[in-house]
Amino acid sequence: MAGLKIDDILAAADRIKPYAHRTPVLTSQSLNTVVGARVYLKCENFQKAGAFKFRGACNAVFSLPDRALNAGVATHSSGNHAAALALAARLRGVMAHVVMPRGASAVKRAAVETYGARIIDCAPTMAAREAGLKAVVAETGAEVVHPYNDYRVMAGQGTAALELLQDCPALDILLTPLGGGGLLSGCAVAARALKPDLEILGIEPAGADDAQRSFLAGRVIPVENPQTIADGLRATIGDKTLDIIRDKVDAIVTLDDAAIVRAMHFAWERLKIIIEPSAAIVIAALLERKVEVRDKNVGVILSGGNVDLYDLPWKAA
Amino acid sequence: MAGLKIDDILAAADRIKPYAHRTPVLTSQSLNTVVGARVYLKCENFQKAGAFKFRGACNAVFSLPDRALNAGVATHSSGNHAAALALAARLRGVMAHVVMPRGASAVKRAAVETYGARIIDCAPTMAAREAGLKAVVAETGAEVVHPYNDYRVMAGQGTAALELLQDCPALDILLTPLGGGGLLSGCAVAARALKPDLEILGIEPAGADDAQRSFLAGRVIPVENPQTIADGLRATIGDKTLDIIRDKVDAIVTLDDAAIVRAMHFAWERLKIIIEPSAAIVIAALLERKVEVRDKNVGVILSGGNVDLYDLPWKAA
Repeated sequence: MAGLKIDDILAAADRIKPYAHRTPVLTSQSLNTVVGARVYLKCENFQKAGAFKFRGACNAVFSLPDRALNAGVATHSSGNHAAALALAARLRGVMAHVVMPRGASAVKRAAVETYGARIIDCAPTMAAREAGLKAVVAETGAEVVHPYNDYRVMAGQGTAALELLQDCPALDILLTPLGGGGLLSGCAVAARALKPDLEILGIEPAGADDAQRSFLAGRVIPVENPQTIADGLRATIGDKTLDIIRDKVDAIVTLDDAAIVRAMHFAWERLKIIIEPSAAIVIAALLERKVEVRDKNVGVILSGGNVDLYDLPWKAA
Repeated sequence: MAGLKIDDILAAADRIKPYAHRTPVLTSQSLNTVVGARVYLKCENFQKAGAFKFRGACNAVFSLPDRALNAGVATHSSGNHAAALALAARLRGVMAHVVMPRGASAVKRAAVETYGARIIDCAPTMAAREAGLKAVVAETGAEVVHPYNDYRVMAGQGTAALELLQDCPALDILLTPLGGGGLLSGCAVAARALKPDLEILGIEPAGADDAQRSFLAGRVIPVENPQTIADGLRATIGDKTLDIIRDKVDAIVTLDDAAIVRAMHFAWERLKIIIEPSAAIVIAALLERKVEVRDKNVGVILSGGNVDLYDLPWKAA
């Protein structure tokens, strides 16, 4: 049982349409020349709250039955999902409770506060985050919206690929970043339905390659102590996302952090767009020739653009 | 005699079409909310060589009669015009001789080298630049392409406004950065012809306000020792550009460097695009409410995105 169908993604597209941006698809002759292909950049860095995460959070929050609204929504997150859920909740007029580990980026914390969510601090461990979330739910009865292992969230994320394929029906291959698997699983369901012979790849950091190992093993192998600059891709893949990825995705490719930073610098310098390391990884896969794309129409999801502008990875170079 | 007509700009549009990008027009709900208007961002930071300068250089180089081609083209420039001219010359297969002051940005010098131009070093003074250019022309017979005070260049720059008004015919007001006046004069001729009642403003740094003073005095008043972070806007306005600006432009507004840096940071953080200080000045005019735009359709030319990523203006903050 796949648990996620194209109809869920089409319904999500209708549901989030009044709130989410239909982000532009940009092209760059300079990138095309370097990689020898036609690359279509789906710019989720321009999405509300600066990342594709708003799609899934918005779909989840606006899927809630009215009776669930009084208690609000809750999650634990140190990053883009927290801000996305906070914004989606505000748009629906419900309370968001966000358990955040101490040490989370000040920029991301500020975004969650700006959107009016209640922040509950916790120690920076997964156990503390889960305990904190459990306590909040016990106290408030809030509906938990997991960052990725939730079909409502996955359906929302799939709308990114849906839009990209509507705008660029001639795609031959689709690359998305891969962390917990919400983006890749949703996009794979959408893309496989719209274009069955499309090649679909997930791109993951070598220092957090739990998805590749889980993909090959056929079961979730948790990441131990992930080491990567791509802070959005450190999570362990979920059981629901893995099932879909094994069913729909052709392969998983890994990149090291040096390649990610080079690609991020390339994007800033040559494409003139701000993308975060977790998004740069798909550009890295092209620049490092980890994927065979020559003369193909290549779609990539640039997942987000939330970066601390005071702390860039090449500053020390 | 205006010296520049809409037909010149339409011809330039045809001439540069095979080489220049038709850059996208982006919008940002977050910017619109902050300024209380609908803002249309003409993204010349995505233009070839990273700035609108390619339009003018390309139009000039491809306007040259065949008999002028052997001798090549020449200019003096420390910035975007040098790279633009070098690229345009390479595309037409002619030599470009660029007199560059010592101390010019390493990034910009590298771009000129990448495009295969011959670089002639000189002392960082206007007198040395002009003497260097004179010597090169005497030696080679190259055709001088001035960065702005040249109708072929101005016509090319005007194609930016032409495209913006084609894409957004409902504009009420147009803002462009103002340095030597090439962009503003070309855009003003295009915009006034397409939409006679459009409000047209030039935005200039307070520390290099020669254009505003010249506009009011009715004659070129050279800038003495310009002090601004907007390195593209330090030049003294030209006599040809000033004539057109006095005829077509409604007013000139100045912004200080602190406002420019704030606007550049806003663009990077919220719009997720890389723009240079000379482009950020038009965002600054909106954020600082130096221009009355409430509920209007506002077109702005984001002139370029060439920034040294290792030396950002907020690093020291």
